[in-house]
Amino acid sequence: MQAEIICTGSELLLGYVQNTNADYLGHELAALGIEVVLQITVGDDWKIMEQAVREALERVDLVITTGGLGPTTDDITKDVIAAVLGVPMVTDDESLAQMREYFARRGIEMPDIFIRQASFPYGSRIIPNHKGTAPGALIERDGKVIVIFPGPPRELRAMFETWVKPYLLEIPGRGEVLRTRVLKLTGIAEYAVQEILKELGDLVNPSLGYLAMPGEVHLRVNAHAVDPAEAERMVEELTEKVTGLVGEYVFAIDDEVPEKTVGDLLLRKGLTVSVAESCTAGMVAARFTDVPGSSRYFIGGVVAYDNDLKREVLGVPAEILDRYGAVSEQTAVAMAEGIRRLTGSDLGLAITGIAGPDGGTRAKPVGLVYVALASARETLCQRLLLPGVRKAVRIGTVNSSLRIVKSFLNRQA
Amino acid sequence: MQAEIICTGSELLLGYVQNTNADYLGHELAALGIEVVLQITVGDDWKIMEQAVREALERVDLVITTGGLGPTTDDITKDVIAAVLGVPMVTDDESLAQMREYFARRGIEMPDIFIRQASFPYGSRIIPNHKGTAPGALIERDGKVIVIFPGPPRELRAMFETWVKPYLLEIPGRGEVLRTRVLKLTGIAEYAVQEILKELGDLVNPSLGYLAMPGEVHLRVNAHAVDPAEAERMVEELTEKVTGLVGEYVFAIDDEVPEKTVGDLLLRKGLTVSVAESCTAGMVAARFTDVPGSSRYFIGGVVAYDNDLKREVLGVPAEILDRYGAVSEQTAVAMAEGIRRLTGSDLGLAITGIAGPDGGTRAKPVGLVYVALASARETLCQRLLLPGVRKAVRIGTVNSSLRIVKSFLNRQA
Repeated sequence: MQAEIICTGSELLLGYVQNTNADYLGHELAALGIEVVLQITVGDDWKIMEQAVREALERVDLVITTGGLGPTTDDITKDVIAAVLGVPMVTDDESLAQMREYFARRGIEMPDIFIRQASFPYGSRIIPNHKGTAPGALIERDGKVIVIFPGPPRELRAMFETWVKPYLLEIPGRGEVLRTRVLKLTGIAEYAVQEILKELGDLVNPSLGYLAMPGEVHLRVNAHAVDPAEAERMVEELTEKVTGLVGEYVFAIDDEVPEKTVGDLLLRKGLTVSVAESCTAGMVAARFTDVPGSSRYFIGGVVAYDNDLKREVLGVPAEILDRYGAVSEQTAVAMAEGIRRLTGSDLGLAITGIAGPDGGTRAKPVGLVYVALASARETLCQRLLLPGVRKAVRIGTVNSSLRIVKSFLNRQA
Repeated sequence: MQAEIICTGSELLLGYVQNTNADYLGHELAALGIEVVLQITVGDDWKIMEQAVREALERVDLVITTGGLGPTTDDITKDVIAAVLGVPMVTDDESLAQMREYFARRGIEMPDIFIRQASFPYGSRIIPNHKGTAPGALIERDGKVIVIFPGPPRELRAMFETWVKPYLLEIPGRGEVLRTRVLKLTGIAEYAVQEILKELGDLVNPSLGYLAMPGEVHLRVNAHAVDPAEAERMVEELTEKVTGLVGEYVFAIDDEVPEKTVGDLLLRKGLTVSVAESCTAGMVAARFTDVPGSSRYFIGGVVAYDNDLKREVLGVPAEILDRYGAVSEQTAVAMAEGIRRLTGSDLGLAITGIAGPDGGTRAKPVGLVYVALASARETLCQRLLLPGVRKAVRIGTVNSSLRIVKSFLNRQA
């Protein structure tokens, strides 16, 4: 089954607002085995939109529109569709009553202009909108389906999830479904991952997709199959092979939030943590505390950008700094033990490294980072060599630190 | 003058990769007075792409394509355009030589498959690509212009800036140009900004656009005019009026990076700074150090998430914490003076507040934040009430802190 998506909104064409609806729908439809062959963005131009809807209905079985359901005369989506189908617009009494109620709850009388929002092409089934005022609609016609969504992403997503997705799942003749898993890697460059995974040979289905961003590489495992369970199994198998080769770099899977995973592990084990940061300068502490309720296990930290602070606040011996330098295993270990002592936390995490662009040497290049983790029993230290520029090195260091703490906690009984 | 943009790439339709090219081109063309009336995204479907190109050439004067210039047989953009124009594909010897050289510099012989990248519809003017291997092309035909770009955004942007933009500027008959200025506000909700700016009346041209994101509201001042200088003047005038009403919330203008502005001011005045953070927990330190070379003025910081650290490391008197609480002007002031003393920096910045979701009370609600700034002469403190949820409160606090430091430094002789 093939689909086309028609998005309306002048602000989208001006490039100020990202068209997240198109991305969301493309992604969700692929998971249902529906292939999007064309996505169109138009302003409020009647002629262009009419042509787009007409041609889409000639080409594909599912046409989805987003936006243009508001109360003003610029909002023409439903009128255009009615014109293409050759049906009149009719007012839906129930939608109208709900909209009046929506306004009443806010203590305002509904302006008459909003009546337009309750009008739909004849033959529409109304899709209720519990997060806004403009309902959507679904029209079946000659074996084709038209779905009409409002523009705000929150509203569209809720309506897709609760109403449209169940409907589409009932349609026979959908094609192969797509199943994916995203492994998020850090501390390694995209080309290096590709180099390692060459040994898996040419992959067609299941396949691998790469997406590089500062400090992370997202490795997407895709599988198509008519049977969803078969697609799942294919994803599972390839994921296992991939993990065998590059698993040590994985810091999160799919929508996992690693700082949340680490926080949950700390809570379960009744442990607290504090952080001493040099090159990341607060980024690790900020990530830990992105999680609501993190004050139950996160005590605090020191940003020791200057060596004086490493010595005076964290108690790193001057001899260590002089002999091994600020970016060294010895300094990282002393910082981790120092922050643990200073705050009285169970775990002390320390980061020191060279983020660049300056400060790198042949022996200690930009991207060299030491991450140390002190506990009551021992202090571990990992040496990392992070690819990329300053921003990538810093984000990669934060991700790697979370990976190191997570793996430490998982190893504890 | 009107334009259509045709983007190709299956990954765009799957929603995994954001279509930044469409946003960039929409934005840039509007600034040149060229209106984008339609933007299309297709996979590698010959029939759909051919129809799209044909119809675009019927409707508008400028057709831009992105992507599909690679060496594989899935890359069909140029072939489709040649077919629509009814011209043959011809190889450009100079492009071919440059590509061979590109590979030679990397010590590899160019695979034959890449010859396709040097073939163009007959009549093309070649747009050199200094950041990649696939050149673009420009074709004039019956008063219409087709511009063919490769897909990678870095390459497309460089080619637009150095080659296509100068070309488009020479075309007569462009319409009114769009000029914009973006004022970035923080510490105030979008609806509150709208409420204040109501007194400017209904604005059509120049106009105001709003874009809310966590911790900031972007206020876009737009003006259309045939004469660019006139558009500039209109933007200038409205900006002045807006600044008169909400200027106190502005922390950055257009592409200004406020942490860079603050860093430059500190360097110019020969001052250093350190930071004590509670609710932002390292985010302010991280922002300061996003700037390369920030170690020249940024000394370090303490993340005093726990009250013990506020007392023991920053030296906030227990009586102050007991009497006024951790979120109070008195504590913020003591933290700012404490971090300044601890690090020996010229300025000490301190943040304490309630980010939520828990911890708010009627007297001290979520969003209440105190920002204190200690210098040799005095310690200032601002009370903020930040709108939104945890993430918005934290980002808004960081932005507000930068605004406060910037305004302090600007006031100094």
